[in-house]
Formats: sequence, structure tokens, C-alpha cells
Amino acid sequence: MTETGQLLDQLRAVVGPPNVIVDADERASYEVDWTRRFRGEALAVVRPASTAETVAVVRACHEHGARMVPQGGNTGLVGGSVPRGGEVVVSTRRMDEIGPLDDDAGEIVVGSGAVLEAVQAAVRPAGWDVGVDLGARGSCTIGGMVATNAGGEHVVRDGPMAEQVLGLEGVLAGGAVVGRVPALRKDNTGYRWHRILTGSEGTLAVITRVHLRLVRRPKAQVTALVGLASFPDALALAGAFHRDIEGLDALEAFFADGLDFVQQHIDLADPFPQPAAAYLLAEAGAAETDEAVREMGATVEAARGVVGAAVATDAAGRARLWRYREAHPEVANSSGIPHKLDVTLPFDALPRFPDEVRRRIAAVAPDARVLLFGHVGDGNLHVNVLGPAPEDYAVDDAVLGLVVELGGSISAEHGVGIAKRDWLARYRTADDLEAMRAVKRALDPQGLLNPGVIFTP
Amino acid sequence: MTETGQLLDQLRAVVGPPNVIVDADERASYEVDWTRRFRGEALAVVRPASTAETVAVVRACHEHGARMVPQGGNTGLVGGSVPRGGEVVVSTRRMDEIGPLDDDAGEIVVGSGAVLEAVQAAVRPAGWDVGVDLGARGSCTIGGMVATNAGGEHVVRDGPMAEQVLGLEGVLAGGAVVGRVPALRKDNTGYRWHRILTGSEGTLAVITRVHLRLVRRPKAQVTALVGLASFPDALALAGAFHRDIEGLDALEAFFADGLDFVQQHIDLADPFPQPAAAYLLAEAGAAETDEAVREMGATVEAARGVVGAAVATDAAGRARLWRYREAHPEVANSSGIPHKLDVTLPFDALPRFPDEVRRRIAAVAPDARVLLFGHVGDGNLHVNVLGPAPEDYAVDDAVLGLVVELGGSISAEHGVGIAKRDWLARYRTADDLEAMRAVKRALDPQGLLNPGVIFTP
Repeated sequence: MTETGQLLDQLRAVVGPPNVIVDADERASYEVDWTRRFRGEALAVVRPASTAETVAVVRACHEHGARMVPQGGNTGLVGGSVPRGGEVVVSTRRMDEIGPLDDDAGEIVVGSGAVLEAVQAAVRPAGWDVGVDLGARGSCTIGGMVATNAGGEHVVRDGPMAEQVLGLEGVLAGGAVVGRVPALRKDNTGYRWHRILTGSEGTLAVITRVHLRLVRRPKAQVTALVGLASFPDALALAGAFHRDIEGLDALEAFFADGLDFVQQHIDLADPFPQPAAAYLLAEAGAAETDEAVREMGATVEAARGVVGAAVATDAAGRARLWRYREAHPEVANSSGIPHKLDVTLPFDALPRFPDEVRRRIAAVAPDARVLLFGHVGDGNLHVNVLGPAPEDYAVDDAVLGLVVELGGSISAEHGVGIAKRDWLARYRTADDLEAMRAVKRALDPQGLLNPGVIFTP
Repeated sequence: MTETGQLLDQLRAVVGPPNVIVDADERASYEVDWTRRFRGEALAVVRPASTAETVAVVRACHEHGARMVPQGGNTGLVGGSVPRGGEVVVSTRRMDEIGPLDDDAGEIVVGSGAVLEAVQAAVRPAGWDVGVDLGARGSCTIGGMVATNAGGEHVVRDGPMAEQVLGLEGVLAGGAVVGRVPALRKDNTGYRWHRILTGSEGTLAVITRVHLRLVRRPKAQVTALVGLASFPDALALAGAFHRDIEGLDALEAFFADGLDFVQQHIDLADPFPQPAAAYLLAEAGAAETDEAVREMGATVEAARGVVGAAVATDAAGRARLWRYREAHPEVANSSGIPHKLDVTLPFDALPRFPDEVRRRIAAVAPDARVLLFGHVGDGNLHVNVLGPAPEDYAVDDAVLGLVVELGGSISAEHGVGIAKRDWLARYRTADDLEAMRAVKRALDPQGLLNPGVIFTP
């Protein structure tokens, strides 16, 4: 029997034959990511149902020197969750147990394969919520969100996943289990694995269970959409919202050209009679709606360059306003294979970034379509570029080069994955990168876990 | 010239002769920690003034195989900041630059040697505050607070230091600089050093600069002290405060026997005409004092077993109520060398812990005096035991054994240091500990940084 045959037999013995997928058609959905820009063939897809099964799966792969790609909901955007070619995909989706909810403490333990939307459904009736919410909520798993330190629309209030994780359990490349679940809120007993593993993109461990802190759902929510004469005007208003509005929980921006493009593809009325150059969407949680509407209104009235404004407090009205922002990535994805660049700028560099990045992109790809939108409250903009071929990195190079010049981050929330690994050397010092590699080698000496992610081979 | 002589000359060349302290009298304050339970002689104390000087100091030590103990304000409680014998103390206190304050974002970059109180003084006039506050605020440094993931009285609201650190810069044992300051709020570009180094107790790096997020100071504060008929009654009220009071920022407990002992040592009136078994101190920030007083009053009125209650909203009155709680560690420290055990219990084990821990201590040290107090809102109690000799670990063993049985943490906020390292093997699995050691070896192969801390040699 071949070594591969032996490995597959061992895996089948651990998880049962139906949970070792080798058929090409059945493998297909595990082999291409959300962007469709990254794909690769898996040796097999293995679906363990518990930490113990994950340990056995990882040990079997380790024994045979088989490389592994941990995968949750496979909604990543940087190629980190799909095979490069020949790896065993370790899918966490069957580890989807949820709860029970600790209603006093506002905490819950979930399997890493639990889907965000299912966890939301489990905790929201009791007035709690998961601190991070994403468009991919119907597919993305908690484990994947932890592995990539997912951000999303409410980072301005609750922080990214790193701030939601109280503890976790993970399986290292050799099969050792690290971490502790349930965790304790205060626990200073040496290195904490949830801090090390959050954001490590599957390169150090397969995460199996996660202990989450929850956040209180606000009793009411107020959403405002404001059109402004310029992006600097939008930033000034964003700053005013930040200062003045207690309970601010989202602060998003998009632009006239992006909205035009969105409106060419889906049926969406103009938000205001007058066209605006930039749009700001703000949302705040409040105990009492009227007061929050008054506060938001006063801030908008005091702002410069306001072209139009709308406020909603009911679910349907709020969804209508959010639609303008959320349609951007949808339309970008349905119009081709966008280059999705996800960057943070220092606040002082933000005002000039949109014009400058359009100039730099036009210089290397004159016919490219640029969609800019994102979490302006965190200094985080998504630069989606349509037109250039998926394997053409000139646009990525132009955008990330500008970001490095301006002192920004080349990955605000999507992670490094395959897409940005070659860029890391321009963002981090050689000493810093070498120390990262030392940690990787210490925990995965043979480089079996998610090879090629973060680190250029 | 001896190798030590060569090393000292090299260090003098880097930081200037006055900043290499070899005289025994001048060294003395660096050689014994806050508890007076841990002390050791240093080869020398070196005081670099910058990251570049720290790199040169660490490189010189590395070259000569000299072990190093990073030290901030030396207010640690587990022996982690003083020499075991023969190390070079690398004092960060000269790296005490502060600011400028970023008033829009609520962030500041400080040197690791900046003293907490000085940072508080720099940011409070603008309405900001550091998220962690400690009794040692006049001496403890931000770098030390990060290295030990300090907690304190407001963790229930703002979390420990891990949640305040946006980024940092540190020097590894070989002289490599890792991390990035200033940091960006959203930055998913591989392993993040501030997450790895926070709480690593000087075993992985000398931290040189820290980028802090700040928190908003509440406009007003309300403090309540409530005496209760039993500790379970106090816990029930703590739960009610947690649920009902928005902006709750402290929830502390102490006991009748502790208060008696405190009153034997310092002049402090009985808080209420009737004696209580347990006391709960709650504090909340509020935009408007009257409403907060009403809310707190309503919660107390609905509680079971209330023996007496006092509320204060002015600084002097609030300080008077806090005095009861803050006098506990003061009196413990001035009455001998207490065994300071600092534990977290799962919430369901908390009600029976005080009686049980007193029983276990009495069994091994019948004449010991037990002071119990702490951050009950986090499940974190400080067990101070007076009587047994500093080197007698029977009491530590009894207390920590009970905590492990109950599923708690053997160090809630003080860290492992020397004091609890032998206990780690009963708290973490062998696989987990070995993986921690692998990280340590990867970043400090010769074991030069804070040897003997966290890991038993």
C-alpha cells in the first residue's frame, strides 16, 4: 500500500470513512476560497468531530509528513484556507457545538466549527451578542474568525476577535493540545495560547474550541447615512461622531464612484437628491432612541459639507441605509475577481489616501475599476480593484507600496495568507520576521501546518 | 581583565558609567522586591535610556553569556523582577518619555519606564485615563505592567493590560528588536508581538516602548459600600450590580475578620453600626450622579442580607469608602511578610471558597492570620497569609491546591515569577508546558532572559 493509502486508512479509522473526502467533486468546495482567486487540490479533506479526533488526525499526518491546511467556513480572502496543492484539509466544521450560554458572566464556549450566525442565534435572545459581526456570518466559523483575528463592522466599539477570546484549545503540528477551555477571565499563568494563536492563520495550530466573551446588545440602534462634499469633510464628521456619540458602534465610508458602480449592477435609489462625493454611515446603540437621534442630528448639523442626511431607527429603515455600504463588496465580487486589498492608514494620512491610491492604480492599470469602502472609524479601507488578472500583482504592489510609504498596515483584517506574504518583508524588519519564523519553527519544526501562509517558502 | 570586567566596561561604554551600578548600597533597592520575600544579588544594574541602548546592553550581555533580569518599578509580588543571584538587572526606568497624547484617537506612546502615575497625570486633563490602575501607581512602570499583564481594580470595566496595549517594541535575548511603535488599531500582518510578550514576565524580551489605548474618564463617579450578612449575600449583590449598573467599574470584597485586623493597626471607624460578615464595594462611572445613585440604591434595596450601606459621590467621601478596602494590603504588608496568593475561582466555586481556604490554611498553619480581599467582580480574590516563614511553602501549597481542585487559576494577576513556577505543572498539562518552553527556547536559546521565572530550571 502507498504511504498516501496508509495515511487515508488511518484517517478513516479516526473519523469514519464518510469524513475523509477524496472524490474530486466533493472536495471542490474546500479547494477554492471566497475570492475565487486562490485554489489548489487537496490530498483529502478530513472532518474531525472533536479535539481528540483532531489530535489523532494531526498525529497521523505528522507521522506521514503530510502537510495540513486547517479550514473553517472557507470565507477567507487571502488564500490562507485553501490548499496550495497536495495538503490534507482539516475541516473544523463538524466541531460546531454551542454553549451553554453563561448568562451571568456573558460568556460561551463553542466548537471552532460553530458558524457565527448560529452563535448569534443562540445568544441574542438573552440580550447578548458576539462582539464581531461580518457579511460572511452565515458561513464563517468562530475558529476561522479567531485564526484570522476577524474584524468587521463593529471593531470601533468592541474590537476584533482578539478582544472576544477569553481562551481556546488548539492542536499543534505534533498533536500536542495547548490552551484551556473554559478559561478564566483573569489568569496570569505564563504564556497564553489564545493570544499567540489568534491571528496566526492556521500556521501554529488547529483551533478546536473557543471561549468567547459576549457583549450586551444595545436596547435600540440608530443609523445615519450622510452625504458629504468631500472625503475630508466625511473624516471630520467621523471624528465628531467619535467624540460626541456614546455607544457608537459603526463608522463606515464609501464614495460617489463606488456608489455609481453599485447602482449600475443592482437596483438602488439615489440616497439623496444632491450627489455627494463621499458618504458616511454611522450607527450607535442607545438605551433610548429619541435622545440618540437628537445627538446624531446635532453632530450632523454642526458638520461642514453636508449634502444630505437620513436617519433610521427601525430594522427595515436601518437595513435600507446599510444596503448602500454592504452592496459594495457584493457587487465587486459578482463583477469579476477583484483584487481585495485591505489596509489601515494612520489617521493623518487618511484624507489624501483615496485620490493618491486611485492615481497609483491608474498608473499601472489604466482601465481598472476601483471600489473603495470600509471601516473609516478604524482607519481601515478596503481597496477593491476590478480588471487586472488574478495573477497580476502590479496593482497589489502599487496599493501596498503606497500604504507602506504612508506608515499604514498592508493587512488591516484579512490577514497575510498567500496574497500578501511577499510583502511582509517590506512591512516588518528582517529581525522581526526572523523572530516570527523562530516561533513557527519551535511549534511546527517540519513546517506541516498551513505551509506557505504568512511565510514565503 | 576578567570577563565580568570586560562586560562592565562594555556596558559603561553604552550607557555611561553612572548608569552601570555595581556598588552594593546603590544596588540594594533593585535587589529586593515589593513583598520582601524575594531577593538576590545583581552582578550590576544597567540603566539604558533608549531602545538602541537596550539593544547594545542586551548584545553585550549575550556575548558574555550574562543572564539578565528586566526590571521596571520593581513592584512585582512573585519574585520575577529581582535577581536570583549574579544576573545583570536591566532597569527600564530611564526610558520614561511620555506622549504626545493623541487626543482624537485616545492613544499615547510611552517609554516602558514611564511610571503609571506620570502617564495618568499626562492624559487625565484631556478627559482620558489609563485603563488599568493599581495601588503601586506611584512606582510601577508601564513596561512592568505590560510584562506582567497587570490587572487591578478596574478590570471589570476595562480589562487587564493586555486590552490596553495596541503595540510595543521589545528587545529579544540576542538583541533583535521586535514589534512596532506606533502601532495601528487594525493590523493583521502575522504574529503580533504585543500579544506574545504581554504577560511573559521578562522571559522573552526587554520591553522598551508601549503604545497604549486610553479609556474615557467618566464625568462623575459613585461609590457604594455595603455590609452583608454573608459572603453568598455579597456575591448575589455583586451579580445584581453587574447586571443592573451600566458603567460599573469596580466590584471589590473584604471580610469581617480582615476589617478587624485592619482596625487593630490603623485608625478606622466601623463602617456601620451593625457588624457585617462581608463587605462589597461597588463603583460606577456615570454622566449624571443623581441617576447613578438612584440606580445603585434600588439595587441595594432589592438585595438580601444588607446590614448597612453608604454611598459617596464626592472625592473625599469616595476615598473614605475605598480606604476600607485599600488598607487591607497595606496592613498585611506592614505586619510581616505575607504569603500573597492571588487566585481566580470560577463563579460557581466562589461562595464556598473563603470558608474552605481558611480551613485548609488552619490545617497546615493553625496560628496563621488570613486576610481575604479582592476583585470579586472578576472572581479574583487575594489570599494574604501572615505568620508562616517566607520560605515555608506549606500554606501556598494548601491554598493553590484548593484552587486547582476548584478549577480556578493559581495566578489571577500577579503572574508566576519564582513564587508559583513549581505549581505550573499542576495547572497546565505537560504538553502545554513543553510548548511554552519551546517558544522560550526559540526566542532565547541560551536562557539568558529572566532565568528561573515561570519555568523551573
